[in-house]
Amino acid sequence: MKLNSNYKILAASTSTIHGSGYLEYILDEATDFLNVDEILFIPYARPSGVTYDEYTEAPRKAFAQKNVSVKGIHEFENPKDAILNSKAIFVGGGNTFLLLKTLYKLDLMETLKKVVSEGTPYMGSSAGTNLTGMTIGTTNDMPIVYPPSFEALGFLPFNINPHYLDPDLNSTHKGETRETRIKEFHKFNSQPVLGLREGSWLEIENGKIELKGNFTARLFRSGVEAVELEELYDFWD
Amino acid sequence: MKLNSNYKILAASTSTIHGSGYLEYILDEATDFLNVDEILFIPYARPSGVTYDEYTEAPRKAFAQKNVSVKGIHEFENPKDAILNSKAIFVGGGNTFLLLKTLYKLDLMETLKKVVSEGTPYMGSSAGTNLTGMTIGTTNDMPIVYPPSFEALGFLPFNINPHYLDPDLNSTHKGETRETRIKEFHKFNSQPVLGLREGSWLEIENGKIELKGNFTARLFRSGVEAVELEELYDFWD
Repeated sequence: MKLNSNYKILAASTSTIHGSGYLEYILDEATDFLNVDEILFIPYARPSGVTYDEYTEAPRKAFAQKNVSVKGIHEFENPKDAILNSKAIFVGGGNTFLLLKTLYKLDLMETLKKVVSEGTPYMGSSAGTNLTGMTIGTTNDMPIVYPPSFEALGFLPFNINPHYLDPDLNSTHKGETRETRIKEFHKFNSQPVLGLREGSWLEIENGKIELKGNFTARLFRSGVEAVELEELYDFWD
Repeated sequence: MKLNSNYKILAASTSTIHGSGYLEYILDEATDFLNVDEILFIPYARPSGVTYDEYTEAPRKAFAQKNVSVKGIHEFENPKDAILNSKAIFVGGGNTFLLLKTLYKLDLMETLKKVVSEGTPYMGSSAGTNLTGMTIGTTNDMPIVYPPSFEALGFLPFNINPHYLDPDLNSTHKGETRETRIKEFHKFNSQPVLGLREGSWLEIENGKIELKGNFTARLFRSGVEAVELEELYDFWD
């Protein structure tokens, strides 16, 4: 499995881990990885319905500590040009359906694919990480709006399930576990699904995918028992 | 708010509550309410990817205890005719996206609306209950397939969130709570959302909606604090 060697992608399960500020756990690493002085932030996923301005303040404050400036895409007259001229892109979390619908509506999907395939660094958290996979078919989000397709950016040859949660064996709740949901996904879809726990992230560079953070990742494939992976090198080579 | 007085609908949060068999907690009530000797079961939501035959065995065994026979819609040559000729319909839970996509593909949505508006009793659990609302925009399910629309059967002038779960104040998980998700829904949709806890159900008859079971229901409206309801009579009259 050969990835585009121009890809420079950081795909995080979450922006925030328990007991820590926005991006705090990953800020050093993200700053080093992106290696730019200015980031274009895409706030379209609008967690909890905050405004684009309000949302953009969160990464702006975080990266300011590293002397990296952040501009929201909504601050530009032409969002397509903003992407084409960006030094690095960070797509924040929130609602994946809303994010995808907005990107399609503004006709930005192909532009994002183009710049990332040409080497513009891409960072995603949560919904922004769902987009790096083939489809949003393994998002945990509520379908609050109807996008014209579930097809995502497809940088990775699999789907991501961010905020991956192990089954709670003590639960009395009858809603499906995450694992059950992903198994259902595989009745109708063939691509692998990587369950990425909060505090873990992927770094894609030079055609390789590296698993970072404190946790193993859970790989689900159609018709095969799920496995825990400590690294992805071997699997995707 | 006047409902069609022909509607005879039982909308359950779940088919199964903790420590109890399939439909066990609601079997007496459902049998009395539907008041027929034969039920048409719609297994299209296929929980965990089971076959239609396997899935149909669950309600068949349950209702057999009440001398009510159950036939799966897939056992009929023409599913539209099966609905038109049914004495009562039970739409089981599973994946709401899959259920809706299948109903649209087989062109059964209008047929379901027709017979229920003319008085055929309809019972739903979980995904089958999501369908009784205006859209599936407040399902908890994973979007494993892409339906041609999120529009549901619209028997009720609101959306349902089945398996409603109160926020876990001790959780360290950063995924959104159910309440946060529904609030996000209301940034883009105006209809109320009723959070129905496992073990609760609605009975709609004579143009009235009654809340049954052991729990209050949580009503979310756009721009208003959520409230707990012990009954729905007053609110929907």
